[in-house]
Amino acid sequence: MLTYTFDNRHGMSMYEHLYRCIKNDITSGKLFASEKLPSKRTLAKNLGISLITVENAYAQLLLEGYIFSRPKIGYFVAPLIKQPCPSILPEVTDKQPKEESFFASFSQSSVPEETFPYNIWARLLRHTLTTANEHDLLSDTSAGGVLALRQAIAGYLYEFRVVNVDPSQIIIGAGTQILYNLIVQLLGRDKVYALEDPGYPRLAQIYLANSVSCRWLPMDPAGISMDSLKKSQADILHITPSHQFPTGIVMPISRRQEILRWALEKADRYIIEDDYDCEFRLSGRPIPPLQGIDTAEKVLYINTFSQTLAPTFRISYMVLPRHLTQLFYQKLGFYSCTVSNFEQFTLAKFIMDGHLERHINRMRTHYRNKCDLISSYIAKSFLASYFKIAGENSGLHFLLHFKTCASDKELSLAAKRKNIDVRFLSQYYHKKPSDNSHMLLINYAGIPAEKLLAAFDLLFEALAPYAEN
Amino acid sequence: MLTYTFDNRHGMSMYEHLYRCIKNDITSGKLFASEKLPSKRTLAKNLGISLITVENAYAQLLLEGYIFSRPKIGYFVAPLIKQPCPSILPEVTDKQPKEESFFASFSQSSVPEETFPYNIWARLLRHTLTTANEHDLLSDTSAGGVLALRQAIAGYLYEFRVVNVDPSQIIIGAGTQILYNLIVQLLGRDKVYALEDPGYPRLAQIYLANSVSCRWLPMDPAGISMDSLKKSQADILHITPSHQFPTGIVMPISRRQEILRWALEKADRYIIEDDYDCEFRLSGRPIPPLQGIDTAEKVLYINTFSQTLAPTFRISYMVLPRHLTQLFYQKLGFYSCTVSNFEQFTLAKFIMDGHLERHINRMRTHYRNKCDLISSYIAKSFLASYFKIAGENSGLHFLLHFKTCASDKELSLAAKRKNIDVRFLSQYYHKKPSDNSHMLLINYAGIPAEKLLAAFDLLFEALAPYAEN
Repeated sequence: MLTYTFDNRHGMSMYEHLYRCIKNDITSGKLFASEKLPSKRTLAKNLGISLITVENAYAQLLLEGYIFSRPKIGYFVAPLIKQPCPSILPEVTDKQPKEESFFASFSQSSVPEETFPYNIWARLLRHTLTTANEHDLLSDTSAGGVLALRQAIAGYLYEFRVVNVDPSQIIIGAGTQILYNLIVQLLGRDKVYALEDPGYPRLAQIYLANSVSCRWLPMDPAGISMDSLKKSQADILHITPSHQFPTGIVMPISRRQEILRWALEKADRYIIEDDYDCEFRLSGRPIPPLQGIDTAEKVLYINTFSQTLAPTFRISYMVLPRHLTQLFYQKLGFYSCTVSNFEQFTLAKFIMDGHLERHINRMRTHYRNKCDLISSYIAKSFLASYFKIAGENSGLHFLLHFKTCASDKELSLAAKRKNIDVRFLSQYYHKKPSDNSHMLLINYAGIPAEKLLAAFDLLFEALAPYAEN
Repeated sequence: MLTYTFDNRHGMSMYEHLYRCIKNDITSGKLFASEKLPSKRTLAKNLGISLITVENAYAQLLLEGYIFSRPKIGYFVAPLIKQPCPSILPEVTDKQPKEESFFASFSQSSVPEETFPYNIWARLLRHTLTTANEHDLLSDTSAGGVLALRQAIAGYLYEFRVVNVDPSQIIIGAGTQILYNLIVQLLGRDKVYALEDPGYPRLAQIYLANSVSCRWLPMDPAGISMDSLKKSQADILHITPSHQFPTGIVMPISRRQEILRWALEKADRYIIEDDYDCEFRLSGRPIPPLQGIDTAEKVLYINTFSQTLAPTFRISYMVLPRHLTQLFYQKLGFYSCTVSNFEQFTLAKFIMDGHLERHINRMRTHYRNKCDLISSYIAKSFLASYFKIAGENSGLHFLLHFKTCASDKELSLAAKRKNIDVRFLSQYYHKKPSDNSHMLLINYAGIPAEKLLAAFDLLFEALAPYAEN
């Protein structure tokens, strides 16, 4: 007969304790398969507990399949397989790769934390929570996102990017990475995707993780080379025409037209225009997007608020050509939008109330000042004659050429020894060039103002021994 | 000579207006390719504007490639291709499919809006915004998500699901759909995925959108049929063992062991355990997950807060076996977590402060009351003798058998005419069964309490003409 004590139940209910005791006896083999259990009434009497406790415990064991019942005969222990032990369990050496910590990193494109308008965001978020119609806020939405946000983005694009789109063409996603995943599912995994070389390394990683064929196309001074594009058999071309990453090339209107022409030659050719930091041209007007001159529904336009607000916002959007919008809802309309409605409504109001515009203007000044400070600091430095800056007005990074005979790798290691993370243009190539670029990529945006000059001091110290005319 | 008026600039700056005027003349063909432009000084004088205005306008046109310069000679219009017009632009009939609107829908699994603890969430969100260390809040995070939330979830799983996991094994994502996408990229697109039939239709859509091979396996009373699993050549098995959707089957311990044994036979076999509504068993203890008895690192456990809080939260998580955690960071560590840090920190505090537990308990009572009300309403209805309820305690939906000779389709249409959306078990099969199930799937959770009985009245009215013994 089963005998259990109910003294030390660790806060569990009587029935739960009993259920666990019996289950333990079954899994440990103390109770045998097909062994008959005492009737509920008998067990309750013997343990001095209520019948309902035994009933509940037996019901749970029955439900989970530890016991079975034969009508009018009673309860029996179910036959269980002894859980086999794997012969070789893969060894795990480290749970999660640790990130190296530097005094400053010029290789990360990020946003300075102190600039985010916390108070405004908090106020709008409260507003969303307290005033929004609860139904809109909590009920599931379309795969494309909340209408209010899409309207706000369409208005913003019209005003600041001279792009005329219908809110229905806009698809919201939790980051551009999600949107790339959706695009592959939309346009097809059998397509060949062409990428800029050099280019943003994560982009290729995402396409490869999605098992699509990629081609890396070389650049000439006007952007992606037309010759290699035509020879590539690519169907989809992914480019950053307003500010190529990392070279900083602005694609001139003639090359844009050539590329649109290329896309027109076949029905399933498309161009993905990644407009990642268009807001932050530091002089003159922003470069108008390719999307604006596309009359043939060939351009998928992508932009993100991670760059304008903060990377951890995870709100991006794409503008699909009208006919692809329809295909999107046919093929992928079952997806739920990946951004929470709280944040979508709050961002909609942030844009509608003019805060986004003000924030961007403020940030442009902030970056402009930072960039000017850096330029003059480099110009006044003891290494000035060995440096040449390129593309300092076109966005949140620029290229710095250094006169040296040392290899990029050598220089990079020297910087690392000074606790500075810096990458060279040559590191962004898929087809690694044999020559050394001596071109440092300077992502300055995310380095806090108070660290900025100290970071350059360390960089100068690191490079000084290698300076050569 | 170029002549423009500066009277009506629509709020544009002088230089922007000039830039637009010249650009228009170039794209419209008024200015010819290779035509020489007036010198900056001459144009400024002729238009009576400052030299700097012309300089800025020319600089922008130069940058965008509308004009080019020959040193010491001057500026010229760039040769542009006339933008070709596509011969056939695909026709778009409708921008976005419209959703049918019903008085009530029993086919949607959702959450009643009025129950969400708005005030608590708003308070915690404010707390996150005002007190959190800004660096933690805004700096980019690991692909797995914010550590504080992963720790909170690990604690929650330990306490309520008796599952012992390390926070490093947890990966946060903006909805389970994102996690399925990640799993395919993690385990490989070359694998064969086996799904329950009947099952959750979106699941198959997601796997198919990811271009993986799927097998649909029939169920027996203990869950997925072992025979068909063994014959299927499947590598990955995706199941809902605690509460199969839509049949409601609870997989007994013996079948769980058989399935784990199957997974152990080959190194790259895995089980995806989808524990989607485990929190809402309405009687007895929750069913312990398969993950808890997996000693061989074969189970990927998935759960979501969309079901416990609100669908538009888009916060889900998976628990990976340790060796897959390592693989995840190797292969997919370049991804950014798809949930904003604001919401991750807020949810962490929501869990740590005990609000999740209290909310779940309150919701369980809410659902229990709703379910009791429905059961007794059905039992007292004029059609009572034609109905039989099954699985009403196991989660947020149950099956309602109706005695009739009419086809499921006929009944579904009859309900639709009464403005009620209801689906039948037969509609959830991949291999559509030839017989009619007469089993209605009743998702009652999301129907507002005040509509509940009226919805059933309409359903009864719709079905009444078809009742037959």
